[in-house]
Amino acid sequence: MNFIDKLLFRLDSINSHLCVGLDSQYDKVPLEIKKGKKISQAIFEFNKKIVQVTNKISVAYKINISFYEAYGFEGIRALYRTTWYIKQNYPEIILLADCKRAEIGRGAIMLRRQIIDWLNFDCIMITPWFGYDAVKEFVKDNSVGVSIYVHDSNPSAPEFQDLKLNNGKFLYEFLAQQIINKWNKSGNIIVEIGATYPKQLKRVRQIVGKEMPILTVGIGAQGGKIENLRGAFGKNNRRLIVSVSRGIILAGVGKKDYFDAVKRTAEKFRNNLLKISMS
Amino acid sequence: MNFIDKLLFRLDSINSHLCVGLDSQYDKVPLEIKKGKKISQAIFEFNKKIVQVTNKISVAYKINISFYEAYGFEGIRALYRTTWYIKQNYPEIILLADCKRAEIGRGAIMLRRQIIDWLNFDCIMITPWFGYDAVKEFVKDNSVGVSIYVHDSNPSAPEFQDLKLNNGKFLYEFLAQQIINKWNKSGNIIVEIGATYPKQLKRVRQIVGKEMPILTVGIGAQGGKIENLRGAFGKNNRRLIVSVSRGIILAGVGKKDYFDAVKRTAEKFRNNLLKISMS
Repeated sequence: MNFIDKLLFRLDSINSHLCVGLDSQYDKVPLEIKKGKKISQAIFEFNKKIVQVTNKISVAYKINISFYEAYGFEGIRALYRTTWYIKQNYPEIILLADCKRAEIGRGAIMLRRQIIDWLNFDCIMITPWFGYDAVKEFVKDNSVGVSIYVHDSNPSAPEFQDLKLNNGKFLYEFLAQQIINKWNKSGNIIVEIGATYPKQLKRVRQIVGKEMPILTVGIGAQGGKIENLRGAFGKNNRRLIVSVSRGIILAGVGKKDYFDAVKRTAEKFRNNLLKISMS
Repeated sequence: MNFIDKLLFRLDSINSHLCVGLDSQYDKVPLEIKKGKKISQAIFEFNKKIVQVTNKISVAYKINISFYEAYGFEGIRALYRTTWYIKQNYPEIILLADCKRAEIGRGAIMLRRQIIDWLNFDCIMITPWFGYDAVKEFVKDNSVGVSIYVHDSNPSAPEFQDLKLNNGKFLYEFLAQQIINKWNKSGNIIVEIGATYPKQLKRVRQIVGKEMPILTVGIGAQGGKIENLRGAFGKNNRRLIVSVSRGIILAGVGKKDYFDAVKRTAEKFRNNLLKISMS
């Protein structure tokens, strides 16, 4: 099955837009899980529990790999075990590599080997600064997906992305048009836009059309409001994936039952997203 | 010692502009080194031999981490051993992490832990697409360096980097100006420009001034000519670092004595660069 079909099938079959961001930090793992365990084991057990209470309503898990690589071999082992565990037990769930990478030529072949072949991700997230060369290796076939950071959620995202070009377009608009007109040859590209920039989110939806799935981040901890998503859901209100990281995986901090709190919070996000998608 | 002083001291003391790119591929490691060895050991032994014949004339080693990460734990072990080996035996040589990464907030703290604290690099190479947020964590102090990809060597680099803005500037010029006027608060930023775009290289030198070190790539295998570098060397002709990867580390392919050929090729590059710098 190709990447987009797999993604849409998952979204349809569980009726959810939610993606959970597994940006798990060792120092935030509850003590009762950490106790007596190596770093790799502690992070992995934490992730496993998160997945166990969220897998029924998660379209995808997005993993920021820097949170793992920071802990050296131990962290990378936790990452490897996590993606392997999800792939083995929930093969229908999409794994998104939030790696903010870009490589060209031989480097891109190497990057694919790491992210897709070794770490079992379904989709790699690429920064577009180097142009099409950074995407080429990942549009050779549509079995895997590529997500392009079109407009990000962070405060300085507009520094480049909202620059006005001499043809009157914003840089992020130009990028969205390149993707639609030139890059998306195999039909396996999705675009990432921060929910903290609702105007840009709507504009990108206009440019890429109703078919292309959009991945959005920045809801919750980063201050993006769920109302910002209205009108961006695309065809059948089923083409938006909303990633929430800290807002869900840290929802148990200070609570009696950590993972029950995570479960309830994730379900609330899922339901609120459904409501907004149909409004 | 701060990063820039360390870099300039090294350049002065060995009178060389050469940076060797250790983009070492397992499948290119000579058979007599591979024989009976695990991947991590084979790549490490290859790198060690390259370093042994080039350390006297190398300002820096630039390592594209994707070439290692492609081989999973074994590759990452080779990377870890390589940077550790260089740091222990040649602490005066600069280690550049060609990782093409960008992270913001907590992710940037994590990225720093991996690249600087764990892998012992002196300088991280960052893509600027997310704006200043991606740089902030690395300009908090000047003990480490940051290299920004301002204009790259690949064919599609102009797709974004040479876009004309509505103020008449090219996007890469705007970036160079942001770096000089706003980002370089701790004085630890250097800029990367592909030698395959000589006009842009000269223009960036004009914008950043004669003091800032420029890292250039694309000489050799990618088709950049050494003559393209004329006029870009900056203050005392000592502010340009020229990275050559395949052109040096694969120079031994098909030769009787692999590493003797590597040594002679590196020396030729070093001498040619010196000549051009003074012409």
